[in-house]
Amino acid sequence: MDLSKLLAERTAYMRASEIRELLKWATADVISFGGGMPDPSTFPLEEIARISSYVLETYGNKALQYGQTEGVPELRDELAKFAASNGIKATADNVIVTVGSQEALELLGRLFLDERSVVVTENPTYIAALQSWRVYRPKLVGIPMDDRGMRTEVLEEQVRKLKAEGARIKFIYTVPTAQNPTGVTMTDDRRRHLLEIAEQNDLLVVEDDPYGYFIFDNISVTRLKALDKSGRVIYLSTASKIFSPGLRLGWVVADQELIRWFALAKQALNLNTPTLNQYLLLEGLRRGVIQRNIPRIVELYRKKRDAMLTALEAYMPKGVSWTKPSGGMFIWVKVPEKIDTKEMLNVAIAKYKVAYVPGHGFHVNEGEGRNTMRLNFTYSSFEQIDVGIKRLADAIREFL
Amino acid sequence: MDLSKLLAERTAYMRASEIRELLKWATADVISFGGGMPDPSTFPLEEIARISSYVLETYGNKALQYGQTEGVPELRDELAKFAASNGIKATADNVIVTVGSQEALELLGRLFLDERSVVVTENPTYIAALQSWRVYRPKLVGIPMDDRGMRTEVLEEQVRKLKAEGARIKFIYTVPTAQNPTGVTMTDDRRRHLLEIAEQNDLLVVEDDPYGYFIFDNISVTRLKALDKSGRVIYLSTASKIFSPGLRLGWVVADQELIRWFALAKQALNLNTPTLNQYLLLEGLRRGVIQRNIPRIVELYRKKRDAMLTALEAYMPKGVSWTKPSGGMFIWVKVPEKIDTKEMLNVAIAKYKVAYVPGHGFHVNEGEGRNTMRLNFTYSSFEQIDVGIKRLADAIREFL
Repeated sequence: MDLSKLLAERTAYMRASEIRELLKWATADVISFGGGMPDPSTFPLEEIARISSYVLETYGNKALQYGQTEGVPELRDELAKFAASNGIKATADNVIVTVGSQEALELLGRLFLDERSVVVTENPTYIAALQSWRVYRPKLVGIPMDDRGMRTEVLEEQVRKLKAEGARIKFIYTVPTAQNPTGVTMTDDRRRHLLEIAEQNDLLVVEDDPYGYFIFDNISVTRLKALDKSGRVIYLSTASKIFSPGLRLGWVVADQELIRWFALAKQALNLNTPTLNQYLLLEGLRRGVIQRNIPRIVELYRKKRDAMLTALEAYMPKGVSWTKPSGGMFIWVKVPEKIDTKEMLNVAIAKYKVAYVPGHGFHVNEGEGRNTMRLNFTYSSFEQIDVGIKRLADAIREFL
Repeated sequence: MDLSKLLAERTAYMRASEIRELLKWATADVISFGGGMPDPSTFPLEEIARISSYVLETYGNKALQYGQTEGVPELRDELAKFAASNGIKATADNVIVTVGSQEALELLGRLFLDERSVVVTENPTYIAALQSWRVYRPKLVGIPMDDRGMRTEVLEEQVRKLKAEGARIKFIYTVPTAQNPTGVTMTDDRRRHLLEIAEQNDLLVVEDDPYGYFIFDNISVTRLKALDKSGRVIYLSTASKIFSPGLRLGWVVADQELIRWFALAKQALNLNTPTLNQYLLLEGLRRGVIQRNIPRIVELYRKKRDAMLTALEAYMPKGVSWTKPSGGMFIWVKVPEKIDTKEMLNVAIAKYKVAYVPGHGFHVNEGEGRNTMRLNFTYSSFEQIDVGIKRLADAIREFL
């Protein structure tokens, strides 16, 4: 059959995730800094096994039956309390449970984006958010960053300009804490400024917060949602980095009317997030498994970050620079302009046995960031970090 | 905030599932024939508990980590074998694991439907398929059914007409076995005819098969996919009715090129189907838990079907008719034309404490099927079936 005649127009805007392709290599003799995978030693495996037995014994068939689209009520309640422990006021009605944060990103596109709708994001920004929205064909407007996060004075100017042009800005998307891909954390004064701009222009703000639990250094981090006075912040988080990514559990905290829209859109995708998995998370929170796990993860990831920064310092040739993240899972590297990291990747993998994610895909516009790359420091072992960064430095040297 | 300014145009085509709304009442003193829920006693609870312990002990962190978008390789292999046991030739490369069949329906819309694309379906057809496709604004063309399934001579005529008009038919959607909502099973000669029409017109066929495992009577059922010689049948099935719906596990069996497209589209939705759940299904198949469970379910559901047919016969007033399904989970009821089952529902619930799904929503065109309803016979107990049908008959009598 000739499928090309049958495929929808939007399929032309679907792109394979380079990160997912990279995952496929991670098992070989290649050291991969590509995927955004947690260190599996951080999964509370034994406790999840105990919880799983308990859930099936206690909740029985309820954990195996269809459930409400919004999520298991007790879990929604528990997630509201968990949000409160991070300064966010919410009740169960403000929460919907999703199949990972990725589903929440898709739902945002589905609910808000028409062709030519405008989404304002940090530039670079989370690659899979761009990927899920591209099929809806919005105009993406990127705001540059520095080491204090999104440059909100540029944001203010851009919003003013866009409004003057009659653009339909749907939301500002930000990963304010330990951003993916740069690792940069937005300062509290910038956060307040961002919310002021949203308030003055009546805009929604999407705060994507997978990494807010991992702050290694002594810095202050206030969730945007905690500062939100008018229900304009849609807060996304996930159990993937603090419990288990394989359970595919994320959640949204937002105004109740927004939660109703999310539920309506989610019905058509999968009816409800797997019920058993929701009960596992419920017990993980009730027993404090997650709350006790977080400081343990912070400790480990701080050491891994330090190991990678040390290796970069030791091995990288002149002209290569990188961020020094206070949290999260990634370091962002710039190589001299003459190197295209996408072109270099094949050689890095085949000859030097090291992988990374080329930076261009995280950018809003074609052609940007060709000399950048994202390195994950959480998945690899300490030895792999040292050996892998040495290999990467050798690859870069070949291309200089 | 005024959300109406911000919502995408497609949100006007999102409809809340009446079935899902009904699920919310099912806990009260109302007997609900509304949801499509399995009898929870069919869930192999103890075996799932044993499997869960085994999986976490044996596969460990692998079961808690991100996985490939297509699914856990061993499970794809096992599902290919399971398909083979139903006459379908497939290898692991022909399989993708989805978050319930619902996700597969959404992916079909996403991959194939542009505005005004044509989808040909049975009329009435599965309500949640219509729901998931409506946001893509296809033209739905319904083919009438009789007690032998979709009337393929009408299909042939319609396809001819549509082609002559230059319509872009994307696929024929059918639930050929124990259809939802009517319970009707398509005869084998009609199945062959349907495939001939697809072959002659180079069309894709989507075979949705959640109920093919539950045939109560001695009839022959050949999967369309088993008759497919040119890779044009996309086969959908699910673990929801033979293992557990709360795990949200479905799968697609199709040509390898199609599977690649499904995977590309799925990445943006949720990266991968929950890994732990996939391992549970893998072991459920490997140990024969599912294979042993099916005849047990068939036995139970046959008795429940018989109980509902007996109650309908005993209590229903003249002028009410219903299907006698050879399998599945539903009976389709027609009441006299003067009754609008949607209007009757509020009274049925509030006064008579019985619920069903009004039939109009299963129809392709507005205004059709106002005097029809779908009854589920699998979820309620035998006593509830008897009492509930009596209540329903009383409600109908009030409206006659």
